[in-house]
Amino acid sequence: MPAHFDLLSADTVTAARRGRLRTRHGVIETPIFMPVGTQGTVKSVTPRHLKDIGAQIILGNTYHLNLRPGSELIRDLGGLHAFMGRDGPILTDSGGFQVFSLAKLRDIRDDGVAFQSHLDGARLFLGPREVMGIQQNLDSDIAMVLDECPPWPCERDACARAVARSLRWAQQCKQIATDSGFLANGNHVFAIAQGSTYDDLRREAAEGLAALDFPGYAVGGVSVGEPEPEMLKQIAATTPFLPPDKPRYTMGLGTPPQLLKMIALGVDLFDCVLPTRVARNGLVFTPDGPLNLRNEKYRADPRPIVEGLANYTAGFSRAYLRHLTMAGEILSCTLLTIHNLHFYLDLMAQARAHLDAGDYGTWHRSWIARYEAGVSAR
Amino acid sequence: MPAHFDLLSADTVTAARRGRLRTRHGVIETPIFMPVGTQGTVKSVTPRHLKDIGAQIILGNTYHLNLRPGSELIRDLGGLHAFMGRDGPILTDSGGFQVFSLAKLRDIRDDGVAFQSHLDGARLFLGPREVMGIQQNLDSDIAMVLDECPPWPCERDACARAVARSLRWAQQCKQIATDSGFLANGNHVFAIAQGSTYDDLRREAAEGLAALDFPGYAVGGVSVGEPEPEMLKQIAATTPFLPPDKPRYTMGLGTPPQLLKMIALGVDLFDCVLPTRVARNGLVFTPDGPLNLRNEKYRADPRPIVEGLANYTAGFSRAYLRHLTMAGEILSCTLLTIHNLHFYLDLMAQARAHLDAGDYGTWHRSWIARYEAGVSAR
Repeated sequence: MPAHFDLLSADTVTAARRGRLRTRHGVIETPIFMPVGTQGTVKSVTPRHLKDIGAQIILGNTYHLNLRPGSELIRDLGGLHAFMGRDGPILTDSGGFQVFSLAKLRDIRDDGVAFQSHLDGARLFLGPREVMGIQQNLDSDIAMVLDECPPWPCERDACARAVARSLRWAQQCKQIATDSGFLANGNHVFAIAQGSTYDDLRREAAEGLAALDFPGYAVGGVSVGEPEPEMLKQIAATTPFLPPDKPRYTMGLGTPPQLLKMIALGVDLFDCVLPTRVARNGLVFTPDGPLNLRNEKYRADPRPIVEGLANYTAGFSRAYLRHLTMAGEILSCTLLTIHNLHFYLDLMAQARAHLDAGDYGTWHRSWIARYEAGVSAR
Repeated sequence: MPAHFDLLSADTVTAARRGRLRTRHGVIETPIFMPVGTQGTVKSVTPRHLKDIGAQIILGNTYHLNLRPGSELIRDLGGLHAFMGRDGPILTDSGGFQVFSLAKLRDIRDDGVAFQSHLDGARLFLGPREVMGIQQNLDSDIAMVLDECPPWPCERDACARAVARSLRWAQQCKQIATDSGFLANGNHVFAIAQGSTYDDLRREAAEGLAALDFPGYAVGGVSVGEPEPEMLKQIAATTPFLPPDKPRYTMGLGTPPQLLKMIALGVDLFDCVLPTRVARNGLVFTPDGPLNLRNEKYRADPRPIVEGLANYTAGFSRAYLRHLTMAGEILSCTLLTIHNLHFYLDLMAQARAHLDAGDYGTWHRSWIARYEAGVSAR
């Protein structure tokens, strides 16, 4: 059996990597972006349109799916892939982050997190056993361990406690996934390194998790309100201490330039609600920065959003897409989401091509320069 | 050049007909249902999904498109087909009905209708010249004349005035479409017979319009609040006086059994927002009546909505579709709309097949009996 991750090449100028990740539902070329499918659907697009734009892997949210419709129901209907009609890989988070951001009256204890559902106030609990059990019910190709994500900014003592607790939970999650046969079945479990802004805690977390030999690692606790330089600094303080032969993932990030900067720091996988969320408000991405289709200047614009980006939405004019957006039509959400996700996925394909060609360093700087010049010009 | 409408066969038991209607953008087999695309989109579905379910012709709303984004803009972008990415036939209404139902402060005069936009209160006017000009801008395959649709119930004198005025407007519309080259270009114009519940006025309207030799005829002023028997009676009082060699259309109707009953009265074309509108609220059609996916009993139902109805939505379980509906996901609207429209289009395909086989009379009665038994059992 081949290794589940092949590091195909490494950039000589940056820390960027080109890799290939095998899962039970297919092979993923990295670096890659994962569209977010919170409640068993990438909002507003059919699996068919998603496949057309080359979505290699998508993300599902354990917290949401466990509340509604419930992970046992999804298990009984054949797992999350069958339930939502997806034949490619799915990664699920542990649900912990949503407990911290959405749930009411949460109580973090050494054995897990007690909280109230944001939907109906039901009292619930997520510990290592629960999050692994739910993700096994979902039959995730990549399950994430439970972790404690400290806020930003965070006192050093509280951060150290979160790192230690996250390490214990990670160990327990791996043991549970081993005992249950989840790992032997070919599903992967990724660990999450915390440590907030403290470089030594970041290193401690990364090294501690690396010693547990997970199939992959996430840099956690970023994108929680800190400025971009701080976010990049935290990633740079973590990746050198993660095993080079395992995939790396930053959760919940980011803008197109941020993705390229994180690739340059050695990150392989990304997910973010940004392209799907802003699409539902009329904002679309271009190589010259985002543009707001509500702007009057697109009223009669016959061009597609981006020339040469071949996807279903490219068959429609900016004028038509603007009309749908102004009229509040659902089809606007669908078409703009297809565009934005394809823009992100195409950017990752370009990154992979430039890694293969050996010029990622210069290419990504010039790509970012054009994008940021476009943003400034608006 | 062949005639634009071929009456292929007529049922021997009922007045049902099997026909073929040629338009600039394609041939339509009748009887047929037209999905409603009010604002330049059939709500929540892409043209690709619409094509997959065999939508031969769709309807656009002149009133809405003229207010937003404006018919000149659509003309400048190549017409409604190019604007909305539809390569098949489109029928547009005249906008008159929406003026009566949506607009504020309307004032019906002999030369047309003055009204205020329901969007921004702008003062506007629609007369025969305006509605034909707008529909020419849209490049409708089938344009409808301006008519005055009396309310239900309606005093005889008011109805007679509406019939006379509608006849004058129809004549003017046809003259305008002739002078402008719209008809010579291969676009069709359909007249609308009013008359409310007065059989003699219905006949007068039908015969008056028939004498003007339109490419097709609609029975107007139905589905404005009257009970179903009254609605069917008005249609039965009109169709015998329309030319048998021209297509007939009832506007804004109806339920699946109503469609079959109207086919039996000799109607060929239908449009209705019912299948698209109720889909957005979780209601789906089956041969045993509609079912509400919000019902708890579908929580774990692994079956498709209707066994054997092969469309994209059939790949998903009732349990999944219910989950999407309960979670308020946009994809629910998309998938349920695909199902409901396909159900309507498939019903029309079945009707055509039974007309071809010569057993429409018995088939449509048994189909309606099963549907209504299902409704009663709920």
